[in-house]
Amino acid sequence: MPREEELELLGRMALAIGHIEGCSEFARLIPEVRSNLVFARENPHGPADVVAVDGRITVVDGMPKAAGRAKFGASSHVARLVIELYGFDPSVRSGINFRYDPRLKKWLEDYCKSKAWLFREVDRSREPEGIKKEEGASMRWKASEIMSAGAARVPKMLCDRGDMGKEPMSVLVGGDPVEVAREVCEIARSRSEASRGLREA
Amino acid sequence: MPREEELELLGRMALAIGHIEGCSEFARLIPEVRSNLVFARENPHGPADVVAVDGRITVVDGMPKAAGRAKFGASSHVARLVIELYGFDPSVRSGINFRYDPRLKKWLEDYCKSKAWLFREVDRSREPEGIKKEEGASMRWKASEIMSAGAARVPKMLCDRGDMGKEPMSVLVGGDPVEVAREVCEIARSRSEASRGLREA
Amino acid sequence: MPREEELELLGRMALAIGHIEGCSEFARLIPEVRSNLVFARENPHGPADVVAVDGRITVVDGMPKAAGRAKFGASSHVARLVIELYGFDPSVRSGINFRYDPRLKKWLEDYCKSKAWLFREVDRSREPEGIKKEEGASMRWKASEIMSAGAARVPKMLCDRGDMGKEPMSVLVGGDPVEVAREVCEIARSRSEASRGLREA
Amino acid sequence: MPREEELELLGRMALAIGHIEGCSEFARLIPEVRSNLVFARENPHGPADVVAVDGRITVVDGMPKAAGRAKFGASSHVARLVIELYGFDPSVRSGINFRYDPRLKKWLEDYCKSKAWLFREVDRSREPEGIKKEEGASMRWKASEIMSAGAARVPKMLCDRGDMGKEPMSVLVGGDPVEVAREVCEIARSRSEASRGLREA
Repeated sequence: MPREEELELLGRMALAIGHIEGCSEFARLIPEVRSNLVFARENPHGPADVVAVDGRITVVDGMPKAAGRAKFGASSHVARLVIELYGFDPSVRSGINFRYDPRLKKWLEDYCKSKAWLFREVDRSREPEGIKKEEGASMRWKASEIMSAGAARVPKMLCDRGDMGKEPMSVLVGGDPVEVAREVCEIARSRSEASRGLREA
Repeated sequence: MPREEELELLGRMALAIGHIEGCSEFARLIPEVRSNLVFARENPHGPADVVAVDGRITVVDGMPKAAGRAKFGASSHVARLVIELYGFDPSVRSGINFRYDPRLKKWLEDYCKSKAWLFREVDRSREPEGIKKEEGASMRWKASEIMSAGAARVPKMLCDRGDMGKEPMSVLVGGDPVEVAREVCEIARSRSEASRGLREA
Repeated sequence: MPREEELELLGRMALAIGHIEGCSEFARLIPEVRSNLVFARENPHGPADVVAVDGRITVVDGMPKAAGRAKFGASSHVARLVIELYGFDPSVRSGINFRYDPRLKKWLEDYCKSKAWLFREVDRSREPEGIKKEEGASMRWKASEIMSAGAARVPKMLCDRGDMGKEPMSVLVGGDPVEVAREVCEIARSRSEASRGLREA
Repeated sequence: MPREEELELLGRMALAIGHIEGCSEFARLIPEVRSNLVFARENPHGPADVVAVDGRITVVDGMPKAAGRAKFGASSHVARLVIELYGFDPSVRSGINFRYDPRLKKWLEDYCKSKAWLFREVDRSREPEGIKKEEGASMRWKASEIMSAGAARVPKMLCDRGDMGKEPMSVLVGGDPVEVAREVCEIARSRSEASRGLREA
């Protein structure tokens, strides 16, 4: 890998992680499996071409906290999904996963509408058994499922309803982790205000 | 809470966490939702009476790593399960969750047999819908399900096969986190040797 | 070491570290060499009998932060000083070091007076050359210097003015790290208020 | 600051910190005041223009460990020294401090000779009293002292013998933290081999 590319990947990740660690509202969107933020180099072939947070982003003292450093190969699931989406649109190189549940779904759909973002929900229970069992094949299926229904472009937000043993999940994708971090923190703050509004109403 | 009780809880947790952070083999047993180790004070009423690892135990640089400090109230799921089991047997005050899958199941059953430990598997898909929706009720159902079939005592190892959106999980319980940490590390080392044996065979 | 003693040492250290990490005002008292908090078992023979913070207590995001876990053998200087003072008074088993400078000196003396605490300042530039060169002998000299002038008891606060290559330092000692942590945090808060008063006056 | 400059600063720091955290031999060169690694943007005016490790680089479990994240403004001493040297030679933008003592001195001088690096030792005890008392002036004096004796260029390694209350210190400087990190880790490994040789001889 050219040195300059590696520096840019690590630099953007450092900035993005600092942004997320400073956003208390994002702590509430961190799912049971914890969040990861990923950034793929160009033409990624596998998770080793993707920088992610070693140990994922957890919650300590109520704040989002990167457990370890940003490293190549530190993500499997989110990294593979971004790699598959890159195949459809090489401007997609970063993503972050966060909570998903029926109550959040309606709100996220409206939020995406207000931003003119494409929102897609996948039903993982439709994933064929053979694919579930094949190592690494699930994300390929998920990406093709997202694109199969004639989507003109890769959605900005992808949600799956979960499955047997799989937590439901939202993923926000974008071109670079700084952009993705800012966007997901804005989502977290908007959601937090909306929840407060509901409780006060 | 009497000061002496608090000191004993924190002291045993510190020793137990040190033990787990030093066991590289345990890293492979950490599930997607990450592990937590909990220790309940006597007569616990809720998670606030249970010490656990803030941010859970994740994997950094290939080693188990407590994300934050041991704190009261830092666990919900494992804490509630231990509280419920305490109701059946007050000698149960600690527990740790780790991976579970069909391949691991057979091996864990044999391991428990070799130790003369009671092993019980729960089918969470049988959990009534009303209970799933009630905050905090799931662990009460899980505990009663474990004990309902006329179990003479609380099992040492409890596994559940997972459910829609819920990762399958093993939980090892015991009287104190130092004992539980040693036992789970011995499990991790034995499992690691067994896997190596299989690959070499 | 009896297991119960080890648990008590680690439990009290965990509680004390939590206290210090929550005291923002203490961050300003952390010296260039960083602080360490130590707790000796009874009849300590060397640093291996003393629990301290691995990596010392530094400042991250403006807050005191224990760099690593509490461990036996993780302190040399403060541990040796407490061991030497234990020889004069076995009720002294814990200590923490923090900043010292001429401006702070007057205030600390007054503070000690208000608490009826014995305050002693040592002039390390009087330390004989032979002792400086002997590994581990400095703290013995420092302790004997403190006690030599006919002190009826071990002082609660010991300050040294530093020396060639040695940062000036305050050390607060006590029977247990929870007590010492509370006391040093109260010092930090009082000092912070006094400084604010001076700036506003 | 242009975004691209910020990304490059953070990217190079991330790579450099990873390098240092992986070098066990560097742990022995970390001084009492701990090490910091700094990287100045072009035309730096003060520490706020310099990225450094928040909480410094300490030793945890025997390995070098960055206590916090790389941040602008997280260093005072090393940052100021690099800023002053930048004034003489704008190719100097990074530096790291480490141990210095008479035993190390001879070896470092020889090491610099073997690398054709300029080595300079400063006697801080000659620093005028007025300068010592003025906030931030010491590093300006130190830099001018280094350059005053007709040095044709900024030395690669600068050592000071310490002073009353000031630990002796080595500083290695260079154009970028990745280069500086590699060089200081090579120094640490060479020194470690040399010490082993001495003990075995």
